[in-house]
Amino acid sequence: MKAIQINEGKMFWEEASLPPCEGSEVLIKIKATAVNRADLAQKAGLYPPPPGASQILGLECSGIIEKVGSKVKNRKIGEEVTALLSGGGYAEYVCCPENHVLPIPKSLTLLESAAIPEVFATCWFNLFMEGNLKIGEKVLFHAGASGIGTAGIQLCKEFGCYSYVTAGTEEKVNFCVKLGSEKGIVRSENRYESFKNYCPDGLNIILDPVGGNYFEENLNNLAIDGRLIIIGILGGTEGKLNIGHLLMKRQKIIGSTIRSRSIKVKGQVMEQLFDKIWPLFNARKIKPIIYKTMNINEAEKAHQIMSENNNIGKIVLEIS
Amino acid sequence: MKAIQINEGKMFWEEASLPPCEGSEVLIKIKATAVNRADLAQKAGLYPPPPGASQILGLECSGIIEKVGSKVKNRKIGEEVTALLSGGGYAEYVCCPENHVLPIPKSLTLLESAAIPEVFATCWFNLFMEGNLKIGEKVLFHAGASGIGTAGIQLCKEFGCYSYVTAGTEEKVNFCVKLGSEKGIVRSENRYESFKNYCPDGLNIILDPVGGNYFEENLNNLAIDGRLIIIGILGGTEGKLNIGHLLMKRQKIIGSTIRSRSIKVKGQVMEQLFDKIWPLFNARKIKPIIYKTMNINEAEKAHQIMSENNNIGKIVLEIS
Repeated sequence: MKAIQINEGKMFWEEASLPPCEGSEVLIKIKATAVNRADLAQKAGLYPPPPGASQILGLECSGIIEKVGSKVKNRKIGEEVTALLSGGGYAEYVCCPENHVLPIPKSLTLLESAAIPEVFATCWFNLFMEGNLKIGEKVLFHAGASGIGTAGIQLCKEFGCYSYVTAGTEEKVNFCVKLGSEKGIVRSENRYESFKNYCPDGLNIILDPVGGNYFEENLNNLAIDGRLIIIGILGGTEGKLNIGHLLMKRQKIIGSTIRSRSIKVKGQVMEQLFDKIWPLFNARKIKPIIYKTMNINEAEKAHQIMSENNNIGKIVLEIS
Repeated sequence: MKAIQINEGKMFWEEASLPPCEGSEVLIKIKATAVNRADLAQKAGLYPPPPGASQILGLECSGIIEKVGSKVKNRKIGEEVTALLSGGGYAEYVCCPENHVLPIPKSLTLLESAAIPEVFATCWFNLFMEGNLKIGEKVLFHAGASGIGTAGIQLCKEFGCYSYVTAGTEEKVNFCVKLGSEKGIVRSENRYESFKNYCPDGLNIILDPVGGNYFEENLNNLAIDGRLIIIGILGGTEGKLNIGHLLMKRQKIIGSTIRSRSIKVKGQVMEQLFDKIWPLFNARKIKPIIYKTMNINEAEKAHQIMSENNNIGKIVLEIS
């Protein structure tokens, strides 16, 4: 098969060995993958794959099941699926546990379905499973126009919650508000204006890919019993806090990644996605926001678009 | 009735007005209360009672129900009970919601039962409800010989978990190990030796009343998926962290107090205590560790014992 290989920080579409598929795993002939910030970090050598994971980039895909391991129970050869991957999506084939794979929603094409797993799994897991988001609560998404932001805004709307965003441009903020967000703020370099004017009691959850630069401001904007869930460190790793405030406000700071979690936990996330979110896809109430579909040969260009923050929503890379 | 009143930082046993008892509340004629660190902080003006709470010191008591509000369903006049209070325990009478009150365990006297609510509720809530403690996990208690430490060590033992402690003296460490702790370390001023030698994979939960001084060392000792639960700031409020480590290790920092939580949440904690822990009291598998029982007139002396860290376990103050 062919797959993206990295040489001196550049991506090349080259020959690679077909991944083995055993036990409870399925082999997927990939239709498309999608770009995530983590891909850019991994390509730069800053985010090594977890032990046992493919060295090839790509945390999600859509495609057709070509082979099933001897212990596979719920998936079948020929099925159109979308999958959450610990790596290996930038390739013609990938192998993953069957419980990380779901049939594509009825409302979407196979190509579009590549844009679902990573951002919807991240949002569902962090907001509802880790963050215990409740009806009526207020959520702030930094990078509101990102794949995760656009997924999160829609989920908040459907589950009776209010979303707020920061984003890099007025255009992005407007997009987020149109999608369902209550209020957006165009961020300044390394900081954002307080949300105290819009949420005087504070935000219940902040889903934050920024880390260091926003840390103190995030805690300042957090409500009593609020949860700051950090999923990225685009703004550095240094954090300072007043522990007394954290204590008196009963707040939680949660460091969270999905990729390195156990097969079982990721299986539970996918199961919940199928139960809670798939019906919303099928009813056309939500959809993955796709900025652009490009060919895998244009992966380098796709990464550049993301690194320059030019996308609103996901960038899909078509493979076959 | 009489109650402890504070005048220029000193406690006096003086006349006070009987608290009203309405709706779902019960009035308890107090047999005994017990001393908590929070009492010392409140007396010093550093920990004001939450809105609506009694201004009188005292977060727990045992006693006999003297009166019930019109909506009380599960408690009866004449019943011997123990209660979690938001304040008011250093008095002859206190009023509180009926769902914060439990009948005393069969194995304990009314006097001894005053030492249960605050530390067992704190441990149960933080370890099991907030911290999701699982069988086989490892917990570190700072101030292992405190009321909370001695309650936590016993709970870990009964629920198939391993406990570790820091304490101020060799005698305290030995007490903790005898009570069921795996290993204890005598702390030095403002720091403690790493537990890496004893728990190379790190600690799953650290229940920490210290805060600032221990913050970085706590995070260093925390396992992947570990939870640092901060319940006090005896060692200051300044914290610094590496957010990247928190993220990659998927750790949680949780600020937690019970006192200011809703009546409902505290009721849930007491309900779980009755279901999960009361049978262990009744079977004499666990007990509150009581250092000394003193008369309420000696409250000042009792506070001094605690402020000098001379107690192992709880100090009970007998009132009637």
